Amino acid sequence: MARPIITLITDFGLKDHFVAVMKGVILGIAPDCQVVDITHCIPSHDVLEAAIVLRASHSFFPKGTIHLVVVDPGVGTSRRPILIGTQKYFFVGPDNGVLSLSCDLETPVEVVHLTSKQYFLTPTSNTFHGRDIFSPVAAWLSKGISSELFGERVPNFVRLQFPTVKRTGETFIGRVLRIDRFGNLITNVSREDIAPIGKRIDQLVIELGGKTVGQLRNSYADAEADEVFSIWGSSGLLEISVNQASAAKLLQAYKNQEFVLRVLPGNENR
Amino acid sequence: MARPIITLITDFGLKDHFVAVMKGVILGIAPDCQVVDITHCIPSHDVLEAAIVLRASHSFFPKGTIHLVVVDPGVGTSRRPILIGTQKYFFVGPDNGVLSLSCDLETPVEVVHLTSKQYFLTPTSNTFHGRDIFSPVAAWLSKGISSELFGERVPNFVRLQFPTVKRTGETFIGRVLRIDRFGNLITNVSREDIAPIGKRIDQLVIELGGKTVGQLRNSYADAEADEVFSIWGSSGLLEISVNQASAAKLLQAYKNQEFVLRVLPGNENR
Amino acid sequence: MARPIITLITDFGLKDHFVAVMKGVILGIAPDCQVVDITHCIPSHDVLEAAIVLRASHSFFPKGTIHLVVVDPGVGTSRRPILIGTQKYFFVGPDNGVLSLSCDLETPVEVVHLTSKQYFLTPTSNTFHGRDIFSPVAAWLSKGISSELFGERVPNFVRLQFPTVKRTGETFIGRVLRIDRFGNLITNVSREDIAPIGKRIDQLVIELGGKTVGQLRNSYADAEADEVFSIWGSSGLLEISVNQASAAKLLQAYKNQEFVLRVLPGNENR
Repeated sequence: MARPIITLITDFGLKDHFVAVMKGVILGIAPDCQVVDITHCIPSHDVLEAAIVLRASHSFFPKGTIHLVVVDPGVGTSRRPILIGTQKYFFVGPDNGVLSLSCDLETPVEVVHLTSKQYFLTPTSNTFHGRDIFSPVAAWLSKGISSELFGERVPNFVRLQFPTVKRTGETFIGRVLRIDRFGNLITNVSREDIAPIGKRIDQLVIELGGKTVGQLRNSYADAEADEVFSIWGSSGLLEISVNQASAAKLLQAYKNQEFVLRVLPGNENR
Repeated sequence: MARPIITLITDFGLKDHFVAVMKGVILGIAPDCQVVDITHCIPSHDVLEAAIVLRASHSFFPKGTIHLVVVDPGVGTSRRPILIGTQKYFFVGPDNGVLSLSCDLETPVEVVHLTSKQYFLTPTSNTFHGRDIFSPVAAWLSKGISSELFGERVPNFVRLQFPTVKRTGETFIGRVLRIDRFGNLITNVSREDIAPIGKRIDQLVIELGGKTVGQLRNSYADAEADEVFSIWGSSGLLEISVNQASAAKLLQAYKNQEFVLRVLPGNENR
Repeated sequence: MARPIITLITDFGLKDHFVAVMKGVILGIAPDCQVVDITHCIPSHDVLEAAIVLRASHSFFPKGTIHLVVVDPGVGTSRRPILIGTQKYFFVGPDNGVLSLSCDLETPVEVVHLTSKQYFLTPTSNTFHGRDIFSPVAAWLSKGISSELFGERVPNFVRLQFPTVKRTGETFIGRVLRIDRFGNLITNVSREDIAPIGKRIDQLVIELGGKTVGQLRNSYADAEADEVFSIWGSSGLLEISVNQASAAKLLQAYKNQEFVLRVLPGNENR
């Protein structure tokens, strides 16, 4: 039988031992588990960023994977620890919305408020539920413990809003969701968002911070040196890029920055 | 049977290939081994920091885990490579004290000076015992090779002193042990250290760098915005924190900084 | 049977989810695979750096290891995705030379242009072949799929030139290949390069950026405080180091910097 997979997203960084003790707890309960780091470099307490990263990555893991997220500014308060079971995956973490953008893409079948203390580490701290609640629950879950044993079913969970593209006729207002390591700007614009412009996608023009982004390219290397272009990125979202350079630096762009996307009338400028 | 676990702490950082070649060596000898990174971001040559991180993390791993630490400024000199067996764990690394703060919490049963070259990589370099001595020894150990085969037993090992809290009556001098990713100041103060003040722990006042730290909180989110408070951290040590901000920045605090901890007389200021 | 090993070298960094989705894809196909990160901190698009890191690390992994490298500025262009089988290892990545410096040290037996789309993720993006082509091919390869099934054999692959040491009599011009985490300068100088000076290696003098590097040391700790010395590093290459300090900072050295290495005449200065 394949080893069960638990993925981890946290804002714990890489210099401390916090992630490792979670792994120690998991392996103590479920020695055959395969733990995969998605990232631990979420900016501290940035629940939305973690939700976006989980949304972009969770579906590349095999069915049955348990996705564990600990970006948890409300740890120790009344915010609930939860488990969400979907048709393909389990999601475990604080009920602060961090799991919700992924569940929007899946088919949730149950939400469980984690209250069964026999599956927690004892004593259970008020400051590190990643270690004391989420890791042991994920580990027991990976061993086949039935989800309803972890607590009572609840009807809902906190949902974040994926930033939507605003449309006025053929003008769209998009937003920079994230900036990746290469300085590519990952936007919130999907193919569906701009479906109304149909085949005129080649006439797409983007204005961001007073600068104009060139045409849509098929690959990074298709672009000229220093050309700022747009491209459908690997997450299915429009990205703004510069070949072998940082679009973020060149455009002095920032996270959450809005931009205008429109279709050039007629064939001018083509 | 559960896969044996080897944990790693080094000061090798994440950009070079040094950690990976250790893993290559381990997996070449013990293919079923599960290698878990604790951290590789120990400041270069900072033996005490590594010892403190190991102390805070080692006990969350299951019995039988082999903890391998390579922070080794004396590599290639006469400092001994050693293995310490305790009732629950094995510790492998240079005999410079880096293993000692954890062994203070465990029950050591044997110390072995690693001299049996048949378990080393050959040729054995003078610059990278992590690869050439410690990794292969840990790997062979995980396969059940008896510890006395790795060299001769020795009666002792180099010990570091965990920084102690100084007490004068009901005034205590504590110290900042580490600053974590969130900017929390992890101190050397345990519950036992301040047991003498008994139930008046609610009247605790901390002065650090001319600033006063507010009351003891139960969770990060209990605190007001920008409030500097103290809290029992996840390692069982007192921490100085700010909710969703960096106490280190706000207080301009630094590692090893001393602070005064005292009990307010009577009920004033409550 | 031992779990197959796939190693990863990329320039994807640690904050994004790119590496994790590659692991998700691999584990979905080959659940028993052991994925080992070599590094993800290659400077963006630096093919030569990745090639040098792979060369320094690949041979410490057991026979049969699959080395997967994704530093791929030409992704989506006509540059070929390839697989190189050698007597001991498989190498998978873009045909931009990144695999070549390691293959120079191995015995290549086949080169396959990866064209069999049934082993790719579909749809196959133009921007992330690490996820869509290289990871699934490596995973299928680890399951024993025969290499010729991945595409047609080709006679050659793009080769980089390992920077060579230039010699004029007993004067050598070397070069700084990389600077490691500790600030050690890893050079391109091997023992073979300077074999002509024979036993007079103790009279070696290095001049770099107007400064003189002291004698060859046997271990870091043999050196005096602040002494700049040379040492045979763990990769078998000459390094320029300072004990417990950064040679790079002290010498204001930089990658690719050239230096002069010569033998002191007679016995003067000894």
